Amino acid sequence: MIKLIDGGVCAAEGFLAGGIHCGIRKNRTKRDLALIVSRVPASAAAVYTTNLVKGAPLTVTKEHIADGVAQAIICNSGNANTCNADGIQVAENMSRLLAEVMHIDHKNVVVASTGVIGQPLDITPIAKGIPALLASLDEHDCSAAAEGIMTTDTVKKEVAVEFTVGGKTCRMGGIAKGSGMIHPNMATMLVFITTDCAISPQMLQKALSADIKDSFNMVSVDGDTSTNDMVTVLANGMAGNEKITAEGTDFDTFMQALNTVTMALCRMIAADGEGATKLLECVVEGAADTATAKTVAKSVICSSLLKAAMFGADANWGRVLCAIGYSGAAVDVNKVDVAFHSAKGTIVVCENGAGVDFSEEIAKEILLEKEIDILISLHSGDASATAWGCDLTYDYVKINGDYRT
Amino acid sequence: MIKLIDGGVCAAEGFLAGGIHCGIRKNRTKRDLALIVSRVPASAAAVYTTNLVKGAPLTVTKEHIADGVAQAIICNSGNANTCNADGIQVAENMSRLLAEVMHIDHKNVVVASTGVIGQPLDITPIAKGIPALLASLDEHDCSAAAEGIMTTDTVKKEVAVEFTVGGKTCRMGGIAKGSGMIHPNMATMLVFITTDCAISPQMLQKALSADIKDSFNMVSVDGDTSTNDMVTVLANGMAGNEKITAEGTDFDTFMQALNTVTMALCRMIAADGEGATKLLECVVEGAADTATAKTVAKSVICSSLLKAAMFGADANWGRVLCAIGYSGAAVDVNKVDVAFHSAKGTIVVCENGAGVDFSEEIAKEILLEKEIDILISLHSGDASATAWGCDLTYDYVKINGDYRT
Repeated sequence: MIKLIDGGVCAAEGFLAGGIHCGIRKNRTKRDLALIVSRVPASAAAVYTTNLVKGAPLTVTKEHIADGVAQAIICNSGNANTCNADGIQVAENMSRLLAEVMHIDHKNVVVASTGVIGQPLDITPIAKGIPALLASLDEHDCSAAAEGIMTTDTVKKEVAVEFTVGGKTCRMGGIAKGSGMIHPNMATMLVFITTDCAISPQMLQKALSADIKDSFNMVSVDGDTSTNDMVTVLANGMAGNEKITAEGTDFDTFMQALNTVTMALCRMIAADGEGATKLLECVVEGAADTATAKTVAKSVICSSLLKAAMFGADANWGRVLCAIGYSGAAVDVNKVDVAFHSAKGTIVVCENGAGVDFSEEIAKEILLEKEIDILISLHSGDASATAWGCDLTYDYVKINGDYRT
Repeated sequence: MIKLIDGGVCAAEGFLAGGIHCGIRKNRTKRDLALIVSRVPASAAAVYTTNLVKGAPLTVTKEHIADGVAQAIICNSGNANTCNADGIQVAENMSRLLAEVMHIDHKNVVVASTGVIGQPLDITPIAKGIPALLASLDEHDCSAAAEGIMTTDTVKKEVAVEFTVGGKTCRMGGIAKGSGMIHPNMATMLVFITTDCAISPQMLQKALSADIKDSFNMVSVDGDTSTNDMVTVLANGMAGNEKITAEGTDFDTFMQALNTVTMALCRMIAADGEGATKLLECVVEGAADTATAKTVAKSVICSSLLKAAMFGADANWGRVLCAIGYSGAAVDVNKVDVAFHSAKGTIVVCENGAGVDFSEEIAKEILLEKEIDILISLHSGDASATAWGCDLTYDYVKINGDYRT
């Protein structure tokens, strides 16, 4: 029903994207300014970080999309525009400068920034760059935009799907920036999603707010909830379907499409966590309720000790039990089973809370793969949850020991 | 009033300590069995990890000191005796084997284990080692015991103080094992404290339970709350003071002595965190209440990003603001001031939640020191708190990438 297709935010009808190097980042080979535009005003929804320290762009964006409508997204990398005295003014200026050239209302512009916190963001290179930014717009290829929002990401992250609503073919695509300071809480990192499906702003917000609980809120790279996290969705209705304005089959299909896009971006973000060599997926089953399953999955995926063990391909399952035990969830630890799984197979390492004999050689072979599943059965009910993360490596320390220079 | 003196758990009158290599650890140069003995039965108090997965020795110890009396502590390293089907039986056997040779009630023996979780603990080397362990007892030097409880610790941790209660000179000393899986919650790591001060078991427990809230519960190396955390205090009364049985001046003095011992051990544990090159101390002032101050201090000290920045001597104060913002405490982030301090001086980096101009050269010089204070003023009240931690380094990853082999 939901079909993966090539592309990202340009996959949906009527969306264009571009990206350039304007001069915020010193490295001239790295793009630092991205733009996503809809040919017509679109329904807009967003979720934001729960960090009390919020980037100035979030305040501006929240105000701009209060009416549920937006037409363009401008995003710079290299500077978070957070904890700056003139932050709001600079973010507001970004929207005005773009709106002027595009001949749209600046209140229809979503503004985002990512990078170092607490360094004033100079508007000059952005102002000078806007003509080139507009000239870079492409209706098929969003690579430049996907690159323009990257910080320490090593690969650009984009995904797109096709689905049918009311007999009309709709498309939805997204791009994301992840890497470090990833430990979402109610919202997460920078993710921009576009769709040509017609849906009201209210239902779009409802879909997004429901989706992130099982997607971005279940990702952690390093336990640090960013100040600039934001997920934005624009839906421009150009697919021509009857507008979704209430729950029902169409809304369910839309949710499935959204979930396919967000889950794919979650896995990409976790796999490309700062310094990561492995994607970790923790699947908790048999929990008494969903909250318990989520708490356990996130606790395990966040354990520095387990993350380091996975880097070393060491089947140190005691650290899984330990993280379950301190998660805060009410779990009967004497019922817990643990297994490790990868493309090389599955190995059970713990049953009923105690170790079982297993082959260290086979465990090593399984854990040397790039994608590792940590499978936990609590045997206390029917609820389940999945969380994504990555291993803790020398490169995480290297990248973050001197990030600013 | 509280005077630091040489020594550890043997500083107090009537306490002896020893340690040997019995064969639990493969490396024959590392001691793996420690013993602390009082010449007479002593008041005993303890606090334990809140991890739902608890080491078997904790269950046995809890039962043994339920009557408030103990005379000996036996502790092995190299194996946590946790998540083992026969764990309780092995821990109980450790106490019985020792009690038999010492001709004391096995219920007066405190048992502790530290090391890998989920590997059966063979009693054989311990049983064989007990005569040599007893022979190693020394009434002046507790180095062998302090070494016997070490896992990945690089230095032994011991401290002692002298104080006066009711005109009598009392002594108190402690040893600790820290390093990794350190993120206490109500109790922490392995710490053994002895004193010759006479105090009832009830008041001893009261003193310990109060103390750990500001000491061990404010230390974090890696955010992982261990399964085997335990702090035990034995007070044998051999100083001859009138027994402390209620609150008052004597109890206050005892609390001060205890706090001096525990704070010193906290700093030693944090400074010798796995892979650490620096001791970090986060001092939060001007909080509306103590809970807020503690929440903020622990959030900052636990941030992987800040820890990596400190390793790189990078004054990336935005990460301090970020960690304050996601701490969960209700803080007015626009009032926050941040400064970094070390033996080389103090540098203010953030005022009223925004960056100030500062010399990166001077900041670097300050942050290259071994002990760094992160000073935070919230300007919202009179409460304060201190938390201790360490930097995140390549060696943390190296040590934990393959801990079991």
